[in-house]
Amino acid sequence: MTTGKNYIGNQVSAKGNRTFKTFNPELDQENETVFTEATKEEIDEAVNLASQAFKEFSTISGTKKAEFLNTIADEIVALDDTLIQMYCSETGLPEGRAKGERGRTIGQLRSFANLVAEGSWVEATIDTAQPTREPLPKSDIRKMLIPIGPVVVFGASNFPLAYSTAGGDTAAALASGCPVLVKSHPMHAGTGDLVASAIVKAAQKTGMPNGVFSNLNSSGIEVGQQLVSHPKVKAVGFTGSIKGGRALYDLAAKRDEPIPVFAEMGSINPVVILPKALENRHQEIAKTYANSITLGTGQFCTNPGLLLAIKSDSLTNFIKNLSEEIIKINPSCMLHPNIKKGYITNKEKVISQENVSVVANFSSEVQNNYAAQTVVTVEGKEFLKNSTLHLEVFGPFSMVVQCENKSELEMIIANLEGQLTGTVISDTDEVSEYPTVISALQNRVGRIIFNGVPTGVEVCESMVHGGPYPASTDSRFTAVGINSIKRWVRPFSYQDWPNNLLPKELQNENSMAIFRTIDGVKTNEKINE
Amino acid sequence: MTTGKNYIGNQVSAKGNRTFKTFNPELDQENETVFTEATKEEIDEAVNLASQAFKEFSTISGTKKAEFLNTIADEIVALDDTLIQMYCSETGLPEGRAKGERGRTIGQLRSFANLVAEGSWVEATIDTAQPTREPLPKSDIRKMLIPIGPVVVFGASNFPLAYSTAGGDTAAALASGCPVLVKSHPMHAGTGDLVASAIVKAAQKTGMPNGVFSNLNSSGIEVGQQLVSHPKVKAVGFTGSIKGGRALYDLAAKRDEPIPVFAEMGSINPVVILPKALENRHQEIAKTYANSITLGTGQFCTNPGLLLAIKSDSLTNFIKNLSEEIIKINPSCMLHPNIKKGYITNKEKVISQENVSVVANFSSEVQNNYAAQTVVTVEGKEFLKNSTLHLEVFGPFSMVVQCENKSELEMIIANLEGQLTGTVISDTDEVSEYPTVISALQNRVGRIIFNGVPTGVEVCESMVHGGPYPASTDSRFTAVGINSIKRWVRPFSYQDWPNNLLPKELQNENSMAIFRTIDGVKTNEKINE
Repeated sequence: MTTGKNYIGNQVSAKGNRTFKTFNPELDQENETVFTEATKEEIDEAVNLASQAFKEFSTISGTKKAEFLNTIADEIVALDDTLIQMYCSETGLPEGRAKGERGRTIGQLRSFANLVAEGSWVEATIDTAQPTREPLPKSDIRKMLIPIGPVVVFGASNFPLAYSTAGGDTAAALASGCPVLVKSHPMHAGTGDLVASAIVKAAQKTGMPNGVFSNLNSSGIEVGQQLVSHPKVKAVGFTGSIKGGRALYDLAAKRDEPIPVFAEMGSINPVVILPKALENRHQEIAKTYANSITLGTGQFCTNPGLLLAIKSDSLTNFIKNLSEEIIKINPSCMLHPNIKKGYITNKEKVISQENVSVVANFSSEVQNNYAAQTVVTVEGKEFLKNSTLHLEVFGPFSMVVQCENKSELEMIIANLEGQLTGTVISDTDEVSEYPTVISALQNRVGRIIFNGVPTGVEVCESMVHGGPYPASTDSRFTAVGINSIKRWVRPFSYQDWPNNLLPKELQNENSMAIFRTIDGVKTNEKINE
Repeated sequence: MTTGKNYIGNQVSAKGNRTFKTFNPELDQENETVFTEATKEEIDEAVNLASQAFKEFSTISGTKKAEFLNTIADEIVALDDTLIQMYCSETGLPEGRAKGERGRTIGQLRSFANLVAEGSWVEATIDTAQPTREPLPKSDIRKMLIPIGPVVVFGASNFPLAYSTAGGDTAAALASGCPVLVKSHPMHAGTGDLVASAIVKAAQKTGMPNGVFSNLNSSGIEVGQQLVSHPKVKAVGFTGSIKGGRALYDLAAKRDEPIPVFAEMGSINPVVILPKALENRHQEIAKTYANSITLGTGQFCTNPGLLLAIKSDSLTNFIKNLSEEIIKINPSCMLHPNIKKGYITNKEKVISQENVSVVANFSSEVQNNYAAQTVVTVEGKEFLKNSTLHLEVFGPFSMVVQCENKSELEMIIANLEGQLTGTVISDTDEVSEYPTVISALQNRVGRIIFNGVPTGVEVCESMVHGGPYPASTDSRFTAVGINSIKRWVRPFSYQDWPNNLLPKELQNENSMAIFRTIDGVKTNEKINE
């Protein structure tokens, strides 16, 4: 079922002559399938089809969209072991993780299906007319959220299913009524190819317009650049590095018509360990964090890369415990030789800075493409003056910053770049003694965690995955949970529009029985004429 | 009460040596007050104060913020005739308009006060813990909207009260908990100065932190540029020209930390007049539109600058009627000699294009700074190939485009730049024969109007004032109505956070009795432990 080709709407297409293969990091060898990169003409064709499809797809009912999303989920399930094997062969990740991520992907698709089938998500808001109002009559005005147009999705290297081809961005965009063009991730193009086939099958089975989805291969940056620059593309979703995300953001901002780019980028996820917690639980915390730092070979955007604490004997003990615990863990495979290379380069860059001490380093030989975990430590004042130490080292790496006192801790946090998460490890009630530290932390992150680990992002409505730049390019949106649909919609008002020509969501009858705000009151009632 | 100085928080300050005066276009002479431009140091001081004030102001209760907003409204009322006279002297607009706009400004402030006093606007969303969930326990996660930080507001030349110093952007930002720095509009710096004094008085009376508001004078672009580039500024609101808005957008996008800019810019507000309506009501429509085009000397962002119709005898009659009606109207004063100059320049630029015919031109002598209204006509095919004809001519000007047929009409609409509004003038049921025209129009605008005029923007929850670029820089937000608060907030999650340390809105007790989404259900109940 792997084609090695692009999906231009429902058609497979391979008109180009640039090809590439994916890589099996566990076997340390290339995989067999040859993927053909999309040409400029194919990209143009895909975007034009998407723009054409938008006319129909943008007005399709929530029930039909739900059917489409649920069928995508079914078709992904139907790919069964073929998909799981492909996933593992392109990532070096174990089968359990592949299956877990598939479950998450399907869960996301179905939760968006439920959202749009129910329908209240459009935030229908109606102010009825007051024809006799003085000095001027008031018009009837009705507002709802509508899709913005074709969306380009760049998949994540570290989530080949849940944040790639049919991942969170795609599910949210399709749910909103926006056609999607996926720039397939070159490290897992085969997984993407299979998932794309599932989406296309689902689109055909449920009668969606051709062009509602396309999947474009490339190993370089040109295909992505052409997509983001195309005048008919109206928004971009991206998960990946700061460098990549910022480049796309800059490109989109330079267009004649700038478009929104939601890029979820790097984060070092500071963890503040308060003194009493450290004193009473340093061993337990060390063990928990040794696991969190190495989980998935440290390849999570919520990996705890920065541990902050005030100097004390307990901190010294904690560093010792953490070092001992972390080297007990067996190294695991990274996603790709290039990811491993990046890990080594960035780690060495940080270690080579003045006054950085390596306290734990898995020193035995590791298999090719496996990552040796490392913990380093540095004084607060060094961290404050050297921004190279704030670099995200993508992999099983963490830095313990030893602060002189509470005010240095607060200053370090206040001067951090934006982050996805911030965590506080505290004894009962201890946290209430640190209001300015907590307030500084809140100001730099999208989610704050009490006595837990930042890894493990629950997919639910209350989740925020995003944060001040550079955690994401626009902290006003989340990339996870049903509210992520808001990235791809805009409010639209109808003034004095004939009832029979309004979308169902805004008609007097309220045939969908959705919750609406009518003259300031939330209700699922109809409007009596 | 006019100081001519800057407000750096609660202090008046005039450290610079660059000064300017405002202009009375009706009397065609400068006004007396000398305004001192803010210096780089004053700007820096104001932003630092705002950033400091944010720490306290961001966590202040909705009740306290409402008191602040209502007191601003009271203080504006207390300025009484001083404000109205200043407004008229700086704009050439009549007293009735000044009073109407003051009413709107006060109404906006009070509606945001009500919004935040009630409190449900934070979209509190709670997913309770499931400690026994398999395979992994579920954390307690609670989300709400929080302010993003200091906001810079650029006032509009054409709304010295409702979209300037204490206008929609400021009211929304203060309501959300963001300190505001206003870059005062140089054409109505005196009006801004008075309103700033009202805000500062209200801030002091209600115990707001110093720096919650600053007002900075300037006649050039440097002060604005410095504000937008300042690392501690977190968002920008702007109402004005495409050139000005785009320059700020570009500046913000180039920052190390890019920030959102919501700019409401130009629009020519297409009006589609369908054939039967034209046949049956051309005289009435002509009269209505002669008034809408000249309302407020055509200085509204929703001014109907483009009338689209299919060629017919009725269209010929309509053009004749419109021309006759519009020259019956007495010309009125423009806001400033520079606005008048822009009107003349842009009008001449459009008229000088090939195949543009002037069908109405108020040819008698007009007073200095008064605008002569003009209507021109052009064939659809000319309009399609010459984008200069799409230029916004800010003033009492409109262009009638004569289309060959329905498909040319649709093509013209589909190729328009983004617009704030689109209007359809139709006989009963006629509109249902034009689904593709309507769908094309919807795709290019933020609000669609049936048998009305685009001028007159109702301030209500269902209103969308914004639209695809360049109507605004981000069509996902509105600049009018309570939902405009969403431009200045971001979602924030607390995971397993101690109940007593959560903001009131997320605590189990729900002491504010706001509506929240708890485990997927909308309720204003508390959570039982």
